[in-house]
Amino acid sequence: MKILLVGAGTVGRAAHDALVARGHEVVAAHRTSAEYPIDLTDPSSIQRVLDKVGPLDAAVCTAGTTPYGPWDDLDRDAWLAGINSKLLGQVELVRRATGVVRAGGSFTLITGILAREPIRTGSVAAAVNGALEAWVVASAGELWGRYRINAVSPTVLTESRDKYADAFPGYPTVDASVVGQAFVRSVESMETGQVYRI
Amino acid sequence: MKILLVGAGTVGRAAHDALVARGHEVVAAHRTSAEYPIDLTDPSSIQRVLDKVGPLDAAVCTAGTTPYGPWDDLDRDAWLAGINSKLLGQVELVRRATGVVRAGGSFTLITGILAREPIRTGSVAAAVNGALEAWVVASAGELWGRYRINAVSPTVLTESRDKYADAFPGYPTVDASVVGQAFVRSVESMETGQVYRI
Repeated sequence: MKILLVGAGTVGRAAHDALVARGHEVVAAHRTSAEYPIDLTDPSSIQRVLDKVGPLDAAVCTAGTTPYGPWDDLDRDAWLAGINSKLLGQVELVRRATGVVRAGGSFTLITGILAREPIRTGSVAAAVNGALEAWVVASAGELWGRYRINAVSPTVLTESRDKYADAFPGYPTVDASVVGQAFVRSVESMETGQVYRI
Repeated sequence: MKILLVGAGTVGRAAHDALVARGHEVVAAHRTSAEYPIDLTDPSSIQRVLDKVGPLDAAVCTAGTTPYGPWDDLDRDAWLAGINSKLLGQVELVRRATGVVRAGGSFTLITGILAREPIRTGSVAAAVNGALEAWVVASAGELWGRYRINAVSPTVLTESRDKYADAFPGYPTVDASVVGQAFVRSVESMETGQVYRI
């Protein structure tokens, strides 16, 4: 399959490695890519890359950010920053890619554990992840027979345990390679409307 | 208790009746109120009413709208309309009311069944409700010891069954009076971080 992969962080690299290992052709797009630059907050950048890559079998997103901060400090601008990047950025990717991914293809988005097990400073992230997880279920119904759509919702990565030890005290971690496999499952299985909580 | 109630629809009236029946003083705010006009999409209207009503024991919201339409038609403007009204409108209400509701008081928001059991045309509503439900859980943690916060997430009202029969085919309904009681429970109980799915 030819798969557009947006995002080049730890999860993005894990998804890339897992999909390539399964023999797929992965088009790697990210903010600083010379060939396929996508900034999720800029819908026109998404459109330009989609126009360039042509027909796809799947689109996968591991990108999108949300601000973190004390509950009282997360003002409307902070909310809009998270909404415009991780929420509407992924929504724009899926909506625009429906004309580029072949019928029967799939979309896979990234959410995260904060949708269900929040941490301090993560209230906007929780909301954005919660929105995405509900939207994936709704979209699976509306796209039935046309496209499949799932989300990968990981806990803290084992690779990031030290960096985020204070933010996620005692949380179980998941290896990035396991997260990568969730993208393979979403792309290759018959499942839709699933949130892979790993 | 003195309670600010935003919204005068079927749910708002049910919450009003249930809270008054419990002996509470209810300040009824809604978009077309002469005395307490609140338009959730206009944060300054929220602030003006909060400044006017003075100290409160609780703030309750039954207002906020989201657009409905075929999945392919819900563009960025439609998303922003739902986000600005039902999501950020309620977030603004809570954030601004933290200075007006006494310490130990509570907030109660309205979400809805589409967060978990979506219907056709309701993909933006699903996302907005999902965001709110995750945010309530996150906020309960961050507001611990200061405020309680819960959400009421009803299915279709029995009173609206005929109007929405095509949109919610065969869905069980809930009487508005039962929904009203969920607001009483949120306001008077010790519960926080709860989503009352009724």
